[in-house]
Amino acid sequence: MTTASRNEHLDPGLAKVLTYIEAHKDEFLERLIEYLCHPSISPQNVGMDDVAELLLKMLRRVGLEARAIPTKGYPVVLASWNHAPNAPTVLLYGHYDTMSAEPLDAWASPPFEPAIRNRRVYARGAGDNKGQHFAQILAVESYLKVHGRLPCNVTILLEGEEEIGSPNLADFASAHRDLLKVDLVVTADGPQHESGRPIITYGVRGVVSFELRARGANRDVHSGNLGGVVPNPVWTLVHLLASMKDKAGNITIPGFHDDIVCPTELDLAAAALLPSDANELRRSLGFRTLDAPVDRPLTDRLMFHPTLSINGLHGGYSGPGMLTIVPGEAFVKCDSRLVHNQDPGDILNKIEAHVKRHAPDVEFVRLESTPPSKTPLDAPFSRNVQWAVSIGQEEDPLIFPALGATLPDHVFTKLLGSPSFVIPYANADEANHAPNENISVDCFIKGIRTGAALLYALSRRS
Amino acid sequence: MTTASRNEHLDPGLAKVLTYIEAHKDEFLERLIEYLCHPSISPQNVGMDDVAELLLKMLRRVGLEARAIPTKGYPVVLASWNHAPNAPTVLLYGHYDTMSAEPLDAWASPPFEPAIRNRRVYARGAGDNKGQHFAQILAVESYLKVHGRLPCNVTILLEGEEEIGSPNLADFASAHRDLLKVDLVVTADGPQHESGRPIITYGVRGVVSFELRARGANRDVHSGNLGGVVPNPVWTLVHLLASMKDKAGNITIPGFHDDIVCPTELDLAAAALLPSDANELRRSLGFRTLDAPVDRPLTDRLMFHPTLSINGLHGGYSGPGMLTIVPGEAFVKCDSRLVHNQDPGDILNKIEAHVKRHAPDVEFVRLESTPPSKTPLDAPFSRNVQWAVSIGQEEDPLIFPALGATLPDHVFTKLLGSPSFVIPYANADEANHAPNENISVDCFIKGIRTGAALLYALSRRS
Repeated sequence: MTTASRNEHLDPGLAKVLTYIEAHKDEFLERLIEYLCHPSISPQNVGMDDVAELLLKMLRRVGLEARAIPTKGYPVVLASWNHAPNAPTVLLYGHYDTMSAEPLDAWASPPFEPAIRNRRVYARGAGDNKGQHFAQILAVESYLKVHGRLPCNVTILLEGEEEIGSPNLADFASAHRDLLKVDLVVTADGPQHESGRPIITYGVRGVVSFELRARGANRDVHSGNLGGVVPNPVWTLVHLLASMKDKAGNITIPGFHDDIVCPTELDLAAAALLPSDANELRRSLGFRTLDAPVDRPLTDRLMFHPTLSINGLHGGYSGPGMLTIVPGEAFVKCDSRLVHNQDPGDILNKIEAHVKRHAPDVEFVRLESTPPSKTPLDAPFSRNVQWAVSIGQEEDPLIFPALGATLPDHVFTKLLGSPSFVIPYANADEANHAPNENISVDCFIKGIRTGAALLYALSRRS
Repeated sequence: MTTASRNEHLDPGLAKVLTYIEAHKDEFLERLIEYLCHPSISPQNVGMDDVAELLLKMLRRVGLEARAIPTKGYPVVLASWNHAPNAPTVLLYGHYDTMSAEPLDAWASPPFEPAIRNRRVYARGAGDNKGQHFAQILAVESYLKVHGRLPCNVTILLEGEEEIGSPNLADFASAHRDLLKVDLVVTADGPQHESGRPIITYGVRGVVSFELRARGANRDVHSGNLGGVVPNPVWTLVHLLASMKDKAGNITIPGFHDDIVCPTELDLAAAALLPSDANELRRSLGFRTLDAPVDRPLTDRLMFHPTLSINGLHGGYSGPGMLTIVPGEAFVKCDSRLVHNQDPGDILNKIEAHVKRHAPDVEFVRLESTPPSKTPLDAPFSRNVQWAVSIGQEEDPLIFPALGATLPDHVFTKLLGSPSFVIPYANADEANHAPNENISVDCFIKGIRTGAALLYALSRRS
């Protein structure tokens, strides 16, 4: 779709809102800068209640019913507008917490004194996620200013614990199902594609992580005096791990693949359209060959295949030269990224059973787990969302059937039973979690446009 | 043999020497204490030249020709008595260097102020090795005092670099073959058996050590964003190592076992006589099952079988909880104890070839290597040495066809072509290399007796 053809047929009601946004963009930018002056760092418990309070006032001023609902951790800010009885309800998810700003001396300007350089706003939270959920709020505000009402129902959910792993989000959603009866969920978070193209993501991989601990003698012993007599816990882990994934890259834990639902024709077709350059990746990261198995397209690896990664393995001597010992203990930390429709608890049970069978003396410790999430490419509202992004961003989005990484989308898809779409508004080089985090002014304004286009699009049944 | 039967048939000439030793034991103990006041710490280059000088004077006073011969490191002290043209020549090997005495505050009395407690002399070097080679010197002195001559020819070789791995011993022996034309080598070093029984050791395992270094991306990457795409160097090492030794404990490097010469009937018979208590070992070291393969006698494991030990394997995250990364690099340090007749260079070549075949991108780094050594149980002078030990120690020795650990015996057996016998004089709890190192007065005096009995025994052709 060309920009001309996009605008040609635009509904006058939406066009008016987009014109309003264009006319107010300097004001919106000033208000973003004001918002970014308030730190809200969840890992360090800095400013969390203040910013929740600030959001309540902001959302009420926009014209929404808003409240802060306590959790075991930081409160969830929930706001709603429910006056379109025949229209669908969209949940706009975001998070008001940020990572810490350390190391402070790596910032060109202080993280909580927002500065504009090169048409970007630099501040902690600019991209992740204040700049993005503030754009959603301004889209709602603009629609209400222009029309006095919204074309669909809106629930805004802003949590304060995304940067610490959303430990209470699922419990919150379970406890407040009555407030979360929605037809779809849209998350504006993360960076756009490095080519500058907008993205819509329909799913994420899940993850389980665990540790294996092996013990031999109760201390390190001399490899001459006792080598061949005392069992070696590093060898125990080597043979156990080798029984879990073969050299060709196949995960060999019985039952591991049982519940995987293969990607659909739509998924495969969408994946095939995505830009991917294995050579450039190899060059930039300095490695020679893609991970085993070798016969997989680059994008399929991240979206459609589970992994078993060793995050760290440690046992015995690590200094210079030699120390000829048989180590007394060793441990390995692993994670496994899961794909649709694997269940974390079931997978951990299967891994544990495998460990018990192959190395009964090795201790198995469960760590974290998050289920995968999948929204079908032909889910309800999928075309509405795609249309809205192409209008708001003035460019057709790349369609990602799934992301390689893990987000708590399962709360929306599995727990609330809604389709869930992730639409990043921030530039690819937003430097989230890093010094000099930023959002480009252009991305911020296009985010507001996209939010407005979305509200309009949802009033048109898909 | 009972003590009574031992003494009944004792040659009057030897009996006179043993009586002399008994009569002078207080003086010998005083002179040991004086010797132990002089530190000679090779790892810290403390007092080395002074003690070499001291030994020269001591050996000349005994009646030997003595000189200090420079090496690339510390000098070798070489002394000889060659006035028995029809008798064999024995090389008595020892070392005048010691380990450092740290941690000093763990000593009950200062390491270079020898103290007698519980009929033991406590000082650095008391057991390892001053107390033992001084006993050899006193045996020679006693024989000369009583008879004015020795029953066989004697060369005493005291090196100053044993505690730093004898880096110049082989070169020294090559360069001075003319001074080292001997018929056998006897080393008094190490501890006796924990039961208190004397020991004669006929061989040692060799050792090669190496490091394998694997690299993936040029930095750690996120296991969600790039897991399944970027190769994982810890997995590379796991699969490479698993190809080198199987779960059943068999080393699977092609050609690894080719040159091994199986133990003789004599070796096996001697090994079967050795005390061994796997249950006690398991209890004291707190492990459940012996290392794989499971179907081997405990003593055979250390004497007749090579090993492939992982000394340390490290890659990726090692902190608390999880960090879901694919590590950028990993390394493993290994040693392999070799048995008769494996060649270190050949084995390293075979390991390197295996690595290149299975994981061509993994870097192979050679570290140390020492050949194994074997003196046949029926070698010339074997019975003479056994007889001498049973007379000197007043108890029949345990016969070890080999030790699990590695000593530079190959210099004597392979380079000089002599049989080589190791006869520890020190008590099992000598605490060598540790604080409160000691030698029991009884062991010291029995060592002098054993040295004297040895000189006599060698004059009787085996």
